[in-house]
This record gives sequence, structure tokens and C-alpha cells, in this order.
Amino acid sequence: MLKNDLLLRAAKGLEVERAPVWLMRQAGRVLPEYRATRSKAKNFVEFVKTPELAAEVTVQPVTILGVDAAIIFSDILVIPEAMGLPYEMIEAKGPRFPNTINSKTDIDKLKIAEAGDLDYVMQALKLTKRELNNSVPLIGFCGAPWTILAYMVEGSGSKTFSKAKQFLYTQPELAHQLLEKITLSSINYLKGQVAAGADLLQIFDSWAGVLSEKMFYEFSLKYISQICDALSPLVPVTVFAKDAHDGIEKIAQTTCSSIGLDWTIDPLTARKQAENKTLQGNADPCLLYADEKTIIAQTQTMLKTFGKQKYICNLGHGLYPDIDKEKVKLFVDVVKGYGW
Amino acid sequence: MLKNDLLLRAAKGLEVERAPVWLMRQAGRVLPEYRATRSKAKNFVEFVKTPELAAEVTVQPVTILGVDAAIIFSDILVIPEAMGLPYEMIEAKGPRFPNTINSKTDIDKLKIAEAGDLDYVMQALKLTKRELNNSVPLIGFCGAPWTILAYMVEGSGSKTFSKAKQFLYTQPELAHQLLEKITLSSINYLKGQVAAGADLLQIFDSWAGVLSEKMFYEFSLKYISQICDALSPLVPVTVFAKDAHDGIEKIAQTTCSSIGLDWTIDPLTARKQAENKTLQGNADPCLLYADEKTIIAQTQTMLKTFGKQKYICNLGHGLYPDIDKEKVKLFVDVVKGYGW
Repeated sequence: MLKNDLLLRAAKGLEVERAPVWLMRQAGRVLPEYRATRSKAKNFVEFVKTPELAAEVTVQPVTILGVDAAIIFSDILVIPEAMGLPYEMIEAKGPRFPNTINSKTDIDKLKIAEAGDLDYVMQALKLTKRELNNSVPLIGFCGAPWTILAYMVEGSGSKTFSKAKQFLYTQPELAHQLLEKITLSSINYLKGQVAAGADLLQIFDSWAGVLSEKMFYEFSLKYISQICDALSPLVPVTVFAKDAHDGIEKIAQTTCSSIGLDWTIDPLTARKQAENKTLQGNADPCLLYADEKTIIAQTQTMLKTFGKQKYICNLGHGLYPDIDKEKVKLFVDVVKGYGW
Repeated sequence: MLKNDLLLRAAKGLEVERAPVWLMRQAGRVLPEYRATRSKAKNFVEFVKTPELAAEVTVQPVTILGVDAAIIFSDILVIPEAMGLPYEMIEAKGPRFPNTINSKTDIDKLKIAEAGDLDYVMQALKLTKRELNNSVPLIGFCGAPWTILAYMVEGSGSKTFSKAKQFLYTQPELAHQLLEKITLSSINYLKGQVAAGADLLQIFDSWAGVLSEKMFYEFSLKYISQICDALSPLVPVTVFAKDAHDGIEKIAQTTCSSIGLDWTIDPLTARKQAENKTLQGNADPCLLYADEKTIIAQTQTMLKTFGKQKYICNLGHGLYPDIDKEKVKLFVDVVKGYGW
């Protein structure tokens, strides 16, 4: 039994004494302790693949920041790799794929990943679970199929993902074949994560925002929905489709338990569009650059707006690496000390 | 008198026989003719500063693509340069500022630009006007003050513009001082453009989307509104705030004549939010990667949805350089040949 199950109760829409709080990218460069652990691996990909190190940085924010959940340290791009398309992480630049997907032959060569192909993540989850010792829930995650396809076709990050979108426009059938394979791989992967100890899952659709509303439904939400259907009977599932501002209403029709909101979404509008779901978010990460007074005031306003129930406090995006750790701690403390 | 004044009538909400069409970044790498002219200048900044070359590429899409308007070839970053902060354009990377703005001293050193400081743009407008020979209207433009501040503080493009936003959060008074200076410079610049022959003006807020709704109103729309007030008595003004999905209603309260929409905005929702304004947009640029049948069908659907009146057909973003010129021409022809 978990000592602190606030996150799980909030995600399920059950009553809580206060809203739980965690931060996207809390296991990251914002913590000096993370940077120390990171320096033990020769590169980012090796770091992700070393269960002891991944578990170590996963637990750090629970101890140091006092958040109500741990999220397994990993990368959404482990899925392409497990399917046969390895990635590199270039310092200060981001991910790069030596090979990309362009044709039916490329797609046919990809395998449907199974949990066993990602054993290092499973090992990291098990180690973390042991180290957490039932203190707080452990979150597992994957990228949304569209976001994963975007990287596999584009080969790197991009402001427009125009190559990936070109693929959707010119070869929609192939795109759907690839999305199917990614979806099946993701379902296998997430089921494995639950078996290894994940108490809640989050699906990150980081590049939902480059799609029109119609294309988001056709090429992204359809597959997110399949993943929700497969996993939500096991654990609560949060869908975070960044910049999908017109998508909230339709995301609320999936079997997810909770919806992540970026900081450009109005909380009260989202409440109306997703009455049946728990909401998560949505502070601007840049708020944590402000002075203490501003952080306290704006965080409290956000808490008041969302309310105590069916709410998970978080940012609207991941922490930026140059944010002061003390400001992050302040944010967490404001949530925990709020006059709920 | 203009032979084709469809754009101006549409912008003013006057009756038209069909919607006018032009494309953001139509004077650009999508045309081989542009690339030929571009090769005559030693770098991008020099290209922008050579009125004969700028005028040449401005006229090209009118002749080659048959669009209903020319937009002066220039860059939004000529304003920082005229204020005392020069920029470079790094091939395949984007803009870079050798010096950036961080303090009150930096801001105090900046001058308020006058039209005379941007004489090369005025010369380009006059040359273009002569070459167009009253065939179609000529559009002038500037960046929105927030977008200009974002580059001046960040020093380059960025996915998050976190440094620029940090400036807003930590030094809001300084940010407002800088925004004031940029606004006054932009007003002088745009008045000069009108005097030199611009028939309509567009304000590009390329980075509106990284701001929360509240911050968009405080740090961006306030200044866009000032520019509209100063210029709209002279010529129609279009505001294009990319990704400001919750901002349409408030943009409609400014004195602009028309509102540009990116492709993630639902046309009918925007119509309701801005009943009093002309709308411009909003095809996904990536649509032009598709086959002819898809381009025709989706463009026609868009035209039907927006309707004939108070509408300017365009993309929801600039053309991407690798789009086929023939597909662009097809898009234009579909609009002109639609059963209006």
C-alpha cells in the first residue's frame, strides 16, 4: 500500500485532502544531483539504458523536492530504437536518427516492440519501485504514436515537422501502417511498465500542436485512444497533447483518466470541455524564473482556479534546465501548504 | 487607381466578386527565380538592403504565380538593426544577434528608429510600386513588438523563447520600456512604408504562441493595438498572431481591419469571435506537399467554409522552401477559378 496515494486518487476522480503535485522533467538537469549522476554515463543513450542510474535520478526529486510522485527517467525515443531505428542525443541540439523512415520497405523492416526489448526500462522501474518503498506512486510513460512517427520520419527535432507532415499528406496509408506498429509497440511497452511497477501512465504528444484539428484526430488521437483502451483497465492514464488547444473536448471522450494542459489553455474552458476528467497542469515553466512573491501569487491563483478535486498540479511543459532548484521547491511547497 | 483592388476591398469589408489570394513568404525560395536573384547578394542582410534586388523578388510572385497582392521583400529584424542592434542570418539556422538586450543600459542605448533609418526599405517599396504599375496592391509589414523583443533578448530563434520570457517575468518594467521603444519605432517605420507606397500593412506576431493568454494581452496585444491605432486611419492593417488561439476575440477589439489565422484555428469559431473583421488564412502549408486532387479538394472546402466576403485566402504560415512552385500555382488557380 502506498503511503501517499494522492496522485492516484486525484487521477481516478476520488476525493483528496489536497491536490498532488509533480513536475514534468523533475528528474532532470534542474537538479545538481541529476547532473552528478548523469556524468557517470558516457552519453545520454547509455544513461537511459543503465537501470541503476535511471532509478537513481528517478528517486532524486521525491527526496529533494518532496513531490507526490516519481516519473521513471527515460526517453520517448526508446520505442523507435526497440522497433529497429536507433537514435542519438546530440548535446545542446537534441535527438538525431542516423536512419529515417520514408517508404513501405522501411516500415516493413521495423519490428513491433515487446516489453522484453525494453528490459532496461523494466529493470529501472523495478529498482525504483524498491527504492521508493511505497512512499509515492511511480509514473510510467511513452510518446504518442504521432510524435514518435514525427521523429522517425523527420530524423530530428524541427519547428514545423514539415517532413513528417509531408509524409501524412502524401502517403496517408503508409503513415497509418507506421502508426499502427508504433501503437502496438507502445501498448506492449506500457503493459510491461505496469507489470514492472508503474502505478499511472502518461502519454506525451509533444508535437500535437503542428497538426490541424482534423489531422490531430485522424493521425494522433485515434491511436492515443487505442492505447488508453488497452491500458486504462490496468492503471489511470494521462494524455498530454501539447498545444492541441482544440482537442480537449475530444481527448475527454477517450478512456483516459486525466488530461494534461499546457500553459496556453484556459483552466475554466478546459473544465467545461472535460467535465468527466481530472486535469493536470498548467503553470508556465518560465514562471519559475520570477521572484518568490510572483511564484507564490500565481501558483495560488492557479490552485484556486482549478480547485481541490480532480486536479493534479504540474507545469504546462517540462522544467527548463536553467531554472533554480530552490524555485522549484518553492512551487511544490506552495501547493502542499495551500489553504486547501 | 489599382487595376486589381480585391485585397483592399476584402480587408475593408467591402463587397468582392471573389476572395483575393496571396501567400506568406511568396517572395521566397519556393521560386527558382528568387534563388537566382538571391545569388546576386553576398548574404541575406545585404540582399534585404539592396532595393533593386528586394523589388525584383517582390514582383516575381505577382508575375509568376498570379497572386492578388505583392508583399515587400524584407525581414522583421530590420527594426532591431535600425534601433542599434544588428543581426546576422546564418544559413540553414536562422537569425543571430551578436549583442543582446539584458539591462536598462542596453535599452537606453537603443534609439527610436525613424523611417529614414530604413531608407533601403522605402526605396524598395518605391521601386516595387513603379514596377507593379498599379496592377495589384503592395503590402508592407513589421514584426509585433513582442516578437521583436523576443529576438533582441534571446539573440536567436528558440523553441521556447525561455530567455525572452524570463525577461518578462523578472523585469516586467524594463520589458515594457523596450516594448514602447519598439512600438514607436514600428509606427515610424510603417508610416514611412505607407508614404513610400504600401497599400495595406501586416503585423507578424510570430511568437505569440509561447505566451499565456494573459501575458499575450499584457506584453503583446497592447502594443499591437497601439500600432493599429496609429496606422489604421491610413491603410487597412492585418494582425497575424501565430498560435494565439485564445486571442482572436481580443484581437477583434483592436482597430485592425483583418486577422490572420494559422491552420490550427477553426474558421467558423474565428468567424464568431471576430464577426466585425475580415479573416485571412488558413491552409496548412504542408497541404501543398499533397497530390493535386487533395490540394484542390481541401482548398475548395476552405473557401466554402470561409465564404466569399470578408475573407483573404492565404496559408496559415509562410511557404516552406521545398514546396513545389507548381503546387503553389495550383493553389492560387483553385482560388481564382472557384465557383464564387
